[in-house]
Amino acid sequence: MPAMIFVSRQEHFNAAHKLYNPDWSQEENARVFGPCANENFHGHNFNLIVTVCGDPDPQTGFVIDLKKLSGLIRDEVVEALDHKNLNLDVPFMQNKMASTENLTMEIWKLLENKVAEITSYGKLYSIKLYETPRNFVEYFGPDTPVK
Amino acid sequence: MPAMIFVSRQEHFNAAHKLYNPDWSQEENARVFGPCANENFHGHNFNLIVTVCGDPDPQTGFVIDLKKLSGLIRDEVVEALDHKNLNLDVPFMQNKMASTENLTMEIWKLLENKVAEITSYGKLYSIKLYETPRNFVEYFGPDTPVK
Amino acid sequence: MPAMIFVSRQEHFNAAHKLYNPDWSQEENARVFGPCANENFHGHNFNLIVTVCGDPDPQTGFVIDLKKLSGLIRDEVVEALDHKNLNLDVPFMQNKMASTENLTMEIWKLLENKVAEITSYGKLYSIKLYETPRNFVEYFGPDTPVK
Amino acid sequence: MPAMIFVSRQEHFNAAHKLYNPDWSQEENARVFGPCANENFHGHNFNLIVTVCGDPDPQTGFVIDLKKLSGLIRDEVVEALDHKNLNLDVPFMQNKMASTENLTMEIWKLLENKVAEITSYGKLYSIKLYETPRNFVEYFGPDTPVK
Amino acid sequence: MPAMIFVSRQEHFNAAHKLYNPDWSQEENARVFGPCANENFHGHNFNLIVTVCGDPDPQTGFVIDLKKLSGLIRDEVVEALDHKNLNLDVPFMQNKMASTENLTMEIWKLLENKVAEITSYGKLYSIKLYETPRNFVEYFGPDTPVK
Amino acid sequence: MPAMIFVSRQEHFNAAHKLYNPDWSQEENARVFGPCANENFHGHNFNLIVTVCGDPDPQTGFVIDLKKLSGLIRDEVVEALDHKNLNLDVPFMQNKMASTENLTMEIWKLLENKVAEITSYGKLYSIKLYETPRNFVEYFGPDTPVK
Repeated sequence: MPAMIFVSRQEHFNAAHKLYNPDWSQEENARVFGPCANENFHGHNFNLIVTVCGDPDPQTGFVIDLKKLSGLIRDEVVEALDHKNLNLDVPFMQNKMASTENLTMEIWKLLENKVAEITSYGKLYSIKLYETPRNFVEYFGPDTPVK
Repeated sequence: MPAMIFVSRQEHFNAAHKLYNPDWSQEENARVFGPCANENFHGHNFNLIVTVCGDPDPQTGFVIDLKKLSGLIRDEVVEALDHKNLNLDVPFMQNKMASTENLTMEIWKLLENKVAEITSYGKLYSIKLYETPRNFVEYFGPDTPVK
Repeated sequence: MPAMIFVSRQEHFNAAHKLYNPDWSQEENARVFGPCANENFHGHNFNLIVTVCGDPDPQTGFVIDLKKLSGLIRDEVVEALDHKNLNLDVPFMQNKMASTENLTMEIWKLLENKVAEITSYGKLYSIKLYETPRNFVEYFGPDTPVK
Repeated sequence: MPAMIFVSRQEHFNAAHKLYNPDWSQEENARVFGPCANENFHGHNFNLIVTVCGDPDPQTGFVIDLKKLSGLIRDEVVEALDHKNLNLDVPFMQNKMASTENLTMEIWKLLENKVAEITSYGKLYSIKLYETPRNFVEYFGPDTPVK
Repeated sequence: MPAMIFVSRQEHFNAAHKLYNPDWSQEENARVFGPCANENFHGHNFNLIVTVCGDPDPQTGFVIDLKKLSGLIRDEVVEALDHKNLNLDVPFMQNKMASTENLTMEIWKLLENKVAEITSYGKLYSIKLYETPRNFVEYFGPDTPVK
Repeated sequence: MPAMIFVSRQEHFNAAHKLYNPDWSQEENARVFGPCANENFHGHNFNLIVTVCGDPDPQTGFVIDLKKLSGLIRDEVVEALDHKNLNLDVPFMQNKMASTENLTMEIWKLLENKVAEITSYGKLYSIKLYETPRNFVEYFGPDTPVK
């Protein structure tokens, strides 16, 4: 009978961003987002935890090879975001608020199908993103039932 | 279609407490609770993580503004518990064992309705409370199905 | 009406292991497991989080006495694994790949019935095992529905 | 030629205290110490790092056996302070302000001569005490030159 | 006889910066600083530890009131740097490389004399600044003997 | 006038070892080293902090380029120790007790001259090695005056 194991890998990236809604006046942005709306940007050391779930391959004991998962996250996510400006340098964040919520959903899209290419024993389960040690977001994909 | 995102904020407070059941003798309290029953109290740096879930507001990218959630936790929870004695100074812990389990359920009650006042895009999902880095408790509200 | 509270305790152990499938050649092991297949072993400081869920005992405020849970984990798990070689010294890991996934499932088996001996208010909910701060695994038992 | 190596061990204890100068009025205590003067106490998870320096014993490679140092700290310091009220339960803190500074100097006195009993290769170098992760104190003994 | 105690407070700020020498070509900047030279900036969660040393005030047990030190750091340092762009928004970083080394020396200048205004028992001893958990810098002031 | 800045980089490696003095009987080894003498080894996630001190290069603002220091530590130290058995696989640990003290002194030797090859503004100041989060060692080189 298959077991269900959840395997996670943490990576990180350092990026600049600002929270700014272009449909609003600067005053409205400052009112809503406070210092996060600073037009010259601020930044964070983001920590990213990617979780894959499945039944381990009996020949390796792995749901997924964490070296491969680490490489995948670096190639697909860290390469796109590290030492970047989320508002200016990242194509898939254009025309979106650069919130941690939105970034998490975009990271899901970057990884969902790629995980299947490196394991046939598990699939992407969640994306957890720490903007700071005290502010963080988790996303379980578009099929999560609304509570 | 709505997404389901889980957004968390960590705050902390430092408090004294003891574990002592007034229906029992001092010997019985010492036997069950050991040094936690010390009549002169001991204390902890509690870390509290509050999670709200929902679909982000398209205008801000936020399920909840974490500055507002931080302010809410400070006003409703930290103000009531920080630098306090849980057994003597906290009205809602009177006549209850000052366990982390019970404290977590009381924090849920303090926050549940207030979260709705600061966001219409999310609702309270869980309260996680670390008594020490090695001892912690999580509560998902009274509607959690019993397993 | 019963509440559902999740109570966790973290312990740790330091162990050596290697990832090596005896059905394969050394070259195949090196290709799949890389430096993890080093025949002379490597090692880790493992961090283990055990979670028990249930409705608190009204007389203690506890789902489970965390001193007792700590003692149980030390007696049943840490005693068997700390300062050991997972491949050579641990009977229940014989003839299994020494992966974190497999170790987590074995720790579940060690603890599941023993938890019932120290509390009648909760039962084992999950085993989370950090091989490193960046690589970790969680298991919720054999009855978890496959996703 | 002898080498100089600094070897450290971290232990912890959980205690209650208040900051209160009995020579002052309650108003003056509240003005100076704020919520730390709460008459019913508050508390902390204290983390303690003890450092010993010296030249390693060539037969063991150790300046000091860290299991012995851990045992010494537990017997002499943790036993005296854990799950205690620093103002009421600890003889050597009587008639002293229960500040982290003063506690650190008292811990030095408890350990200084005892270290010599468990190693002839090193001596006590410093006591570092975290009251919280953000507030901490270090003391290098009474012979430290004043800067 | 006076004791010498070292008392520390940790604060944090989140900022954007780039490493870019305007005397060099863009190619030379990219060669030397790599992705840190990204013209659109990147950013970090900086952690700052300020240490003050001295002999405790016998009436309070404090070298310095850590609530006051926290307030001082927030007013003088965090206010100037948090949610700012170190290259564009911070007057005292103009015409300087925005390295952690240089930032640390500027923070020393901001605090050195101000510490004396909130305690007569200690003086500024060091500034430690974490750009990331793995990259950090410490400065003990201009009078440190060169080694 | 030159400033003195201390710049640090943290790296890590995972290794197996045992503490075993071949001049002693197995009983004597077990008596002195306890479970650390397990003949089949145990292991750790070692964290290594390398500190370089000097006066920053005015053109870069760097005492040392931390990307280069990271690369140096990986090439000289991590390559030699990661996923290795300190007793069997590491030439410079042969005929030495595999204690953290001795390992720290050997890492100093590996890096001391190499640091000069990547910066002319700083030199190696200290090696700090965490065997576990609670057990760690620091070494400042052979010229440290004995205290």
